[in-house]
Amino acid sequence: MAISKTNVPHRIYLTEDQMPTQWYNLRADMKEKPDPMINPGTGGPAVPEDLYPVFCTKLAQQELDDNTRFYDIPDEVLDIYKIYRPSPLCRAYSLEKALGTPAKIYYKFEGNNTSGSHKLNSAVAQAYYAKDQGLAGLTTETGAGQWGTAMAEACSYFGLDLNVYMVKVSYNQKPFRKTIMETFGAKVFASPSDTTNSGRASLAEDPDNGGSLGIAISEAVEVAVTTEGYRYVLGSVLNQVLLHQSIIGLESAKAFELIDTYPDIVIGCAGGGSNLGGLIAPFMRDKITGKANPRIIAVEPASCPSFTRGKYAYDFCDTAKTTPLAKMYTLGSGFKPSANHAGGLRYHGMSPILSKLYHDGYMEAKSVEQTAVFDAAVLFAKHETILPAPESSHAIRTAIDEALICKETGEEKTILFGLTGTGYFDMTAYAQYIDGSMTDHIPTDAELQPGFDSLPQLG
Amino acid sequence: MAISKTNVPHRIYLTEDQMPTQWYNLRADMKEKPDPMINPGTGGPAVPEDLYPVFCTKLAQQELDDNTRFYDIPDEVLDIYKIYRPSPLCRAYSLEKALGTPAKIYYKFEGNNTSGSHKLNSAVAQAYYAKDQGLAGLTTETGAGQWGTAMAEACSYFGLDLNVYMVKVSYNQKPFRKTIMETFGAKVFASPSDTTNSGRASLAEDPDNGGSLGIAISEAVEVAVTTEGYRYVLGSVLNQVLLHQSIIGLESAKAFELIDTYPDIVIGCAGGGSNLGGLIAPFMRDKITGKANPRIIAVEPASCPSFTRGKYAYDFCDTAKTTPLAKMYTLGSGFKPSANHAGGLRYHGMSPILSKLYHDGYMEAKSVEQTAVFDAAVLFAKHETILPAPESSHAIRTAIDEALICKETGEEKTILFGLTGTGYFDMTAYAQYIDGSMTDHIPTDAELQPGFDSLPQLG
Repeated sequence: MAISKTNVPHRIYLTEDQMPTQWYNLRADMKEKPDPMINPGTGGPAVPEDLYPVFCTKLAQQELDDNTRFYDIPDEVLDIYKIYRPSPLCRAYSLEKALGTPAKIYYKFEGNNTSGSHKLNSAVAQAYYAKDQGLAGLTTETGAGQWGTAMAEACSYFGLDLNVYMVKVSYNQKPFRKTIMETFGAKVFASPSDTTNSGRASLAEDPDNGGSLGIAISEAVEVAVTTEGYRYVLGSVLNQVLLHQSIIGLESAKAFELIDTYPDIVIGCAGGGSNLGGLIAPFMRDKITGKANPRIIAVEPASCPSFTRGKYAYDFCDTAKTTPLAKMYTLGSGFKPSANHAGGLRYHGMSPILSKLYHDGYMEAKSVEQTAVFDAAVLFAKHETILPAPESSHAIRTAIDEALICKETGEEKTILFGLTGTGYFDMTAYAQYIDGSMTDHIPTDAELQPGFDSLPQLG
Repeated sequence: MAISKTNVPHRIYLTEDQMPTQWYNLRADMKEKPDPMINPGTGGPAVPEDLYPVFCTKLAQQELDDNTRFYDIPDEVLDIYKIYRPSPLCRAYSLEKALGTPAKIYYKFEGNNTSGSHKLNSAVAQAYYAKDQGLAGLTTETGAGQWGTAMAEACSYFGLDLNVYMVKVSYNQKPFRKTIMETFGAKVFASPSDTTNSGRASLAEDPDNGGSLGIAISEAVEVAVTTEGYRYVLGSVLNQVLLHQSIIGLESAKAFELIDTYPDIVIGCAGGGSNLGGLIAPFMRDKITGKANPRIIAVEPASCPSFTRGKYAYDFCDTAKTTPLAKMYTLGSGFKPSANHAGGLRYHGMSPILSKLYHDGYMEAKSVEQTAVFDAAVLFAKHETILPAPESSHAIRTAIDEALICKETGEEKTILFGLTGTGYFDMTAYAQYIDGSMTDHIPTDAELQPGFDSLPQLG
């Protein structure tokens, strides 16, 4: 049933039977596929068997499958999706009015679950496949804490153990993130920890090491491959994650269909690419196949600019250089964002799928500074009743900037952005913004060089 | 359009044009009205003019209006309701399965806005009437922080100043609550503060006074009546608040209509009664008018048992004894819950409307202990992807208990409870629960006596 275009409701919820029952694999429609993952041992393309010690079997297969266009979402996963989904597609009437823009701003809001973000969409899928394979437990890393919380929720639901390696600086800044993961029964370690060889090596080098996603990944992978019945899961970057997150874009596209509208601009924040890749999937498909031509914009922090200042190169996904190599925009696995950087989006690399699409000119990328991001966050909160996550606020910043351009030009563009989550566990950053102690930092070329120096030299 | 009863979706969202456009005033259908508010100066029933120095004019009129059945919701209020409402009526399939109960459990979830609770429903209304009256600012108190956050959001939206007096023990336990209110531009004071006569009097008596809602109300009222262009707002207890909160029950009743179902039991947590009164409004109407006969259960903390162990008497709403007198179930304005009590629901009194209905036998009340409440909270979180507020978890506890009775008897009862909000700012309490340091406390009669001794002696 179509909803009148002239009277679009503030929030559009699909009914349960309108919800997608398949994930969409964008790779199937890409004219040029992403470069293959490389096994650093053989120097050749990774095969599923290379990944089985690390990943659940079915997830390893999804990871390397460039061809299957749609995957049926398992019933057990749909059962959970139906608890916290569909997420609403929201028309930001109040923000539009505050900006005085003729643009029509929509956001897809993924924060209505306890993990506080879209991360649960892939966490549920990964936990399900682990349970289905008869595993005992999982390991993972978390930075800002959203992914760890999502995995804790998912593992609790399926009765799996979970060890979370949490970047130490976040662990200390966000004690409540630890509590919430523990509430769902997870074990949480500050990374680098003394429970793994890679953690101990990092501590030996620098006892005050505040950690990084790269180090936390190394620890989690080490525990997974050395513990009977355990595997490792990752919340972003991977192809499988973008597959699961396609639910965001599929629901958005369906909701736009109901109001007979199509976005001119699609904007997503980009750390490892999980939200961005999921949000844009059907719109990018239309762009690739020539059905439509929306602008697609990735927004990243100026302090961690993998798209805009990184190299398109093969790199390790972790700091200890134990993972397969992925071709991606990267700042080097040795990169660490400056200490003043708040919130997530701090990973050194970027989804290989998105990297390839960006490289081939299908999307734009821009970087924004964090005080400007929080300006946008607070303006949004005051008008839309949602306190956004710092990550999501990168997309808000750019959506507002585009809407203000429309105000200049008088164009009534339709803008969609991904509101990935809520900022309830980021109040330390909000407090810094309010008291004026938040600062910006654009790394110099010299500051980026050590990361680039850490890139592997290939054949 | 009716939804099949045999295939009820997990979440039922009304469409925007199905949303109620009127609030329902339960007093209009009560066979015996609540006893009138008394002006302690005259000893006679309060008239609107008595309230004008404290409350916005239209709100004072709503407060004393026992007869108007429906109030049109102003368009400006509906504009905001449409941003964060309708809230979903959720079928707890996953919890039902975990319990192995034949009962059908539904919950109305009010946490999908940044205030984290249903409080925004009345905050928006009260801020609107203040703006409409041309006021400059408002004052209020907050305990756990949900009401203060809701008012901060609402005042920010309408461009009003806001001073929040926050119970000191909460202020210290929940620094992020202060930050979030400040993010929306509110000024927040730990109460008792040195900014008011009543605050200074409390501090003179006990410099370590951790505060209470009664003291915070005294401070907020004092500032409102002594500041040009300011008025005071309260988030619970008052008749006007129950009027605004009727949106919860009206939406719930409409959603049940769509699935051709009617609840056998309606359960709400009860502090001052804002959620409970709103949730039950249409169901209580059916009960009063004989159209249906649901059981209606109020659930309160064993450590603050106003319904189950309080006296039905005239009492002040605040500690400094400056407000009009209300006939209600009360522990006395001098009552303070024990120090180990976590979360809200700590007010000494109870909505006069609900008090009258309870007194007249239209509803039941029970008290529960907090570790049992957190047991229920964590079980719920693991199965329904929402971390509930401690307040809401009182209702969850009782809903689970009733569902387990159905398991014994084999009855397929339909249970509705109010899930008033999320627990993101209550992680200290969750941490205590997880590490085993949370304790219970049932006050002895001797511990309740000082509160009763504070009750006013009337003519």
